Amino acid sequence: MEVMTKIKREIFVTKPLLPLLSDLNKHLVDIWESKWLTNMSIKHNELENKLKDTLEVSNLSLFNNGTIALLVAIKALDLPYGSEVITTPFTFAATPHCISWNGLKPVFCDIEPNTMTIDPDKIESLITQNTSAILGVHVYGFPCNVEKIENIAKKYNLKVIYDAAHAFSTKINGVGIGNFGDVTMFSFHATKIFNTIEGGCLTSNNSLLIKKVSSLRNFGIQSEENVEEIGINGKLNELQASFGLECLKIYKDEQRKRNKIKLYYNDRLSKVKGIKIPRMPNNATDSHQYYPIIIEDDYSLTRDELYKKFKSLNIFTRKYFYPACHDYSCYKDNPTMIPNDLTVVNDYKNRVLCLPYYGSLNQYEMNKICEVIENA
Amino acid sequence: MEVMTKIKREIFVTKPLLPLLSDLNKHLVDIWESKWLTNMSIKHNELENKLKDTLEVSNLSLFNNGTIALLVAIKALDLPYGSEVITTPFTFAATPHCISWNGLKPVFCDIEPNTMTIDPDKIESLITQNTSAILGVHVYGFPCNVEKIENIAKKYNLKVIYDAAHAFSTKINGVGIGNFGDVTMFSFHATKIFNTIEGGCLTSNNSLLIKKVSSLRNFGIQSEENVEEIGINGKLNELQASFGLECLKIYKDEQRKRNKIKLYYNDRLSKVKGIKIPRMPNNATDSHQYYPIIIEDDYSLTRDELYKKFKSLNIFTRKYFYPACHDYSCYKDNPTMIPNDLTVVNDYKNRVLCLPYYGSLNQYEMNKICEVIENA
Repeated sequence: MEVMTKIKREIFVTKPLLPLLSDLNKHLVDIWESKWLTNMSIKHNELENKLKDTLEVSNLSLFNNGTIALLVAIKALDLPYGSEVITTPFTFAATPHCISWNGLKPVFCDIEPNTMTIDPDKIESLITQNTSAILGVHVYGFPCNVEKIENIAKKYNLKVIYDAAHAFSTKINGVGIGNFGDVTMFSFHATKIFNTIEGGCLTSNNSLLIKKVSSLRNFGIQSEENVEEIGINGKLNELQASFGLECLKIYKDEQRKRNKIKLYYNDRLSKVKGIKIPRMPNNATDSHQYYPIIIEDDYSLTRDELYKKFKSLNIFTRKYFYPACHDYSCYKDNPTMIPNDLTVVNDYKNRVLCLPYYGSLNQYEMNKICEVIENA
Repeated sequence: MEVMTKIKREIFVTKPLLPLLSDLNKHLVDIWESKWLTNMSIKHNELENKLKDTLEVSNLSLFNNGTIALLVAIKALDLPYGSEVITTPFTFAATPHCISWNGLKPVFCDIEPNTMTIDPDKIESLITQNTSAILGVHVYGFPCNVEKIENIAKKYNLKVIYDAAHAFSTKINGVGIGNFGDVTMFSFHATKIFNTIEGGCLTSNNSLLIKKVSSLRNFGIQSEENVEEIGINGKLNELQASFGLECLKIYKDEQRKRNKIKLYYNDRLSKVKGIKIPRMPNNATDSHQYYPIIIEDDYSLTRDELYKKFKSLNIFTRKYFYPACHDYSCYKDNPTMIPNDLTVVNDYKNRVLCLPYYGSLNQYEMNKICEVIENA
């Protein structure tokens, strides 16, 4: 085992994609002139329209963040209070939290080993009289098995919600990933390849549903003298919409850069015994949001040991998603959870490591990261 | 009745207070350099500290908007599901909506004629076994009767929440208005005198409560490996925090300018028969958020006629708050509302008109507005 030297400049797991400040400033001049800072104004509506084209969806509603978007999406579906939503525990906290905030109960289902998304073959055994929906997450941009999920939903008359926080621009069989299920949420948080600093959107083929969520994000106000629904504030302001308009111009270039890094990582790391690289299914395109690897038993270190080794060298990888949501203290004793088989997720949560993955990662850094894994 | 001519440039009820773009840009350069765009970073924490000083409170938590702040405040109080919160219907939609989104029932109480805030003398008759809290609104910056409300709350063991969306920097007997009740919400929406485009905060003398809401605004995450509470995303980003830092430097000057306008309006309009100008109680300072007038029966026009007359001249006043919240279609049939006396609010909602009120309103415009009222 070679002695590695600590690198000087820290390497983080990601770096936000920033448009040039001079490009953003052109928009800010417009905004300062018009004095319209928020409330679905010019930049907001322009971004909404451009995102429809980019994501190849017919209806889209922008939000101030992905969590509020998901919260409103679930609200708009009018699921019975206290009913159960079957979801994956292999996701960020926001996913089950949005179920809970709506007075519904998240029921955690196991994941399948290839894509690490909710295992459709394990969903049916969790369906009860109280089940009202399935919430799948396209984790790391790997698409859920949308076909099987649709069949189950039809059979049991359930709503289907997708969390596509990691799957910006992903297509399944050439179709934009925002076209599946009843409603899909995208996140535009600073850590996302396309971002509005904080932000998100909802997409749906159901134009009435998007009309409803657009009303709910603005307090349910229909006109100056009519408030029809019990809404909330989910508005994305003009500054962030402008940031998004500029980000739209550069995210593809960032994806191309990340693709080169991915090919480099794939090439070096696929030769390392005990390192498994999950592959995108052939029918789907990669959002290039994360680069996860699986640490198997025959690797020389455990995932946690490798994580610590990286950290000691000033390289910050992420144990996404450890802990899994069913491990959180707020869900551990979830009294509504019926006994379920979480074998795969309980294994994977201890094996997955997300490597640094962003366009400006240089050759020296990429080489260093691979060396750490090769020489551990 | 004199024939008035339509003015060329529209006059709106308010204009957002904007720092110089060049001043904001100094912060943006910092942010672009650090690449920290959000998640409670440098600008955010600086603003949080400075606002504590400005509002003279010991604990404060910033939010992405005032509605999410109020939503989280109510959540953090852990009120029993389905319990009743006594509130005023003379407020913006967000107030009752935040009660409803928490699975609680807004019970609308009448207002008192001087301050147009919730009438403490009518609260007790609305208290039932299911009442858990009182939510008062310091409407137009007029303070609620915090003393009487505190006494009722103590007697019946109720929580007290204040919506101070209109009351930035207001003091009651020299004490910052964010120090009353269990928790107070401020809004920093673009229409507010101090603003962060969209934004808000919570203040409380209870440091544990502010610790809790600060956790809830960030998904309940305690550390990389511990999610303790079912939280949400209420984070204010670094760009908006920077905007706030610059706005803090200029809002007092805006208040001084508005004070001059107020004195001018007071002087001219107090002489008009049938126009009543609500006055700030002697023990409170004015936030200068709005300039409301009351149209009485002996005025030559009704409030709606005066509103229309202004509109025809390109002057946009606001019928804040018409309709009142109990009139909204989503609350009209509120089955939880026990029969209550809403005499005063049902009268005032048809009498109040907010006049254009912002620092850059010029002498010509102010004169024109007064002329319309004098010559109607």
